[in-house]
Amino acid sequence: MERLLTPSYIARCAVLAMALEVSGTPKPGNIDRDHDYADTKYEDFLAAAVGAFPVLEKACHRSGIGELILEATEESTAWQAGGNTHFGAYILLFPLIKAACSGATDMQHEAIHVVRNTTVEDAVDFYRAFGKVPVKMKGSADLSVDDAAAQDEIRRRGLTLFDIMEISAKNDMVAREWTNGFARCFKAAELIAGRREAGTLNDAVVLTYLDLLADEPDTFVAKKYDPDKALYVQGLAIDVLDRRATLQELSNRLYREKINPGSTADIVIAGLFIALLRGMRV
Amino acid sequence: MERLLTPSYIARCAVLAMALEVSGTPKPGNIDRDHDYADTKYEDFLAAAVGAFPVLEKACHRSGIGELILEATEESTAWQAGGNTHFGAYILLFPLIKAACSGATDMQHEAIHVVRNTTVEDAVDFYRAFGKVPVKMKGSADLSVDDAAAQDEIRRRGLTLFDIMEISAKNDMVAREWTNGFARCFKAAELIAGRREAGTLNDAVVLTYLDLLADEPDTFVAKKYDPDKALYVQGLAIDVLDRRATLQELSNRLYREKINPGSTADIVIAGLFIALLRGMRV
Repeated sequence: MERLLTPSYIARCAVLAMALEVSGTPKPGNIDRDHDYADTKYEDFLAAAVGAFPVLEKACHRSGIGELILEATEESTAWQAGGNTHFGAYILLFPLIKAACSGATDMQHEAIHVVRNTTVEDAVDFYRAFGKVPVKMKGSADLSVDDAAAQDEIRRRGLTLFDIMEISAKNDMVAREWTNGFARCFKAAELIAGRREAGTLNDAVVLTYLDLLADEPDTFVAKKYDPDKALYVQGLAIDVLDRRATLQELSNRLYREKINPGSTADIVIAGLFIALLRGMRV
Repeated sequence: MERLLTPSYIARCAVLAMALEVSGTPKPGNIDRDHDYADTKYEDFLAAAVGAFPVLEKACHRSGIGELILEATEESTAWQAGGNTHFGAYILLFPLIKAACSGATDMQHEAIHVVRNTTVEDAVDFYRAFGKVPVKMKGSADLSVDDAAAQDEIRRRGLTLFDIMEISAKNDMVAREWTNGFARCFKAAELIAGRREAGTLNDAVVLTYLDLLADEPDTFVAKKYDPDKALYVQGLAIDVLDRRATLQELSNRLYREKINPGSTADIVIAGLFIALLRGMRV
């Protein structure tokens, strides 16, 4: 659809990207339309996506990235009881939304510009948001997120949100997108859009998720369990791509073992968002 | 959630109601998260729901019901290729949204007031919207919807949108909500909210849909096929409630026979919307 990239339109593409990502099934290990976890269910993700709309829309007009992540986290957790659903996705979506709103012809280049211009206040707000979700970021171990003193330390050291992401990039594939120019997000967008030409959107989402899983160990799994577990998941995904196992076998195993590669899902959301903005039809 | 009923909040509840309704599974005969039709799929309903957001939001500020239905129909069909997804739902949602925005303590009473105050222009806009979706409204057979002259005739006869709904009420359960004070919408809201207290939201949606199917023959089915087919579906739903058949048997049969009780789904959307506004959690 050729549409003016108004803030409302861009925000709706972001909400729809979140709804379509969580709907894609089977997406081994993660919540999808046919798989809930005990404390978070599919409907929680739908409600969180819809609830965040006004924060996504205002990203065009004002507010720093850190403040937006904080507000979106508060808003989306107010709409459901499943806890943190889209924290990683917001880290990717807000720079991309700001880039889309700018009207720049090269959205990727603009997103790189946006993240490099984040401030110390963005970092402080980001840590405040961080305190609201049960996520660990081991790469920034020298900054305890549980410690209120961390915000003072950020100010004292003059760390911007980009600096924080740079520190975290080694062990966090979402943070790494900030330092690698959103390379995997835009790659995911191309994979999804290309596959949508040839098949259903669901297949495009699921197969792209599988490609990304096989491509790099998921850092959410590495942080929740350990790096070996992430490598184990990557190996299983490669087995599916090489036809040594089926997607269903991978799916059954990850759900049974409660391994949810959440950072890979965040990259897929960003990819869907970019593809929708570029005119991909559902 | 106790929230200020801002236009944005109300519109998000409406979007979420549409997303949750289509997600409810198994919802015999209708599209749901596990059932597509050849020309319309689950994702089309999600995209249509998200796409309509700004029209739902502006309902608080201005615009007549007819114009809102027209704009929402245009907007939601621009977001997906599955055609008419929510036409009947809009007929219910817009009066309810305007009632919610008014701040009136008795939302149902206010909705009745809103529809009784619709105008001839609302009727003309409604017929323009009607021309964009492949729906027939047999009850108003004396007003051909395919005929551009119908708009002139509406003006000549001075028919308001409420008058049109009154004419259609006999054969259309959605139109009938306008003349019966939205009785089934509010009943659905109570059923859904009550069941959500005792179980999952999905069960609440599916069981309420089943109750409504057993309660009255679906008029979408009656118009698409014939009244006997609608009675046949009602009888099957009663069989499930009386444990002479299973929900799965009903589901399999309606999908096989391609019978989609769409008007009942519209009532469920309105019920979900009211329940969400009243604080039901997903």
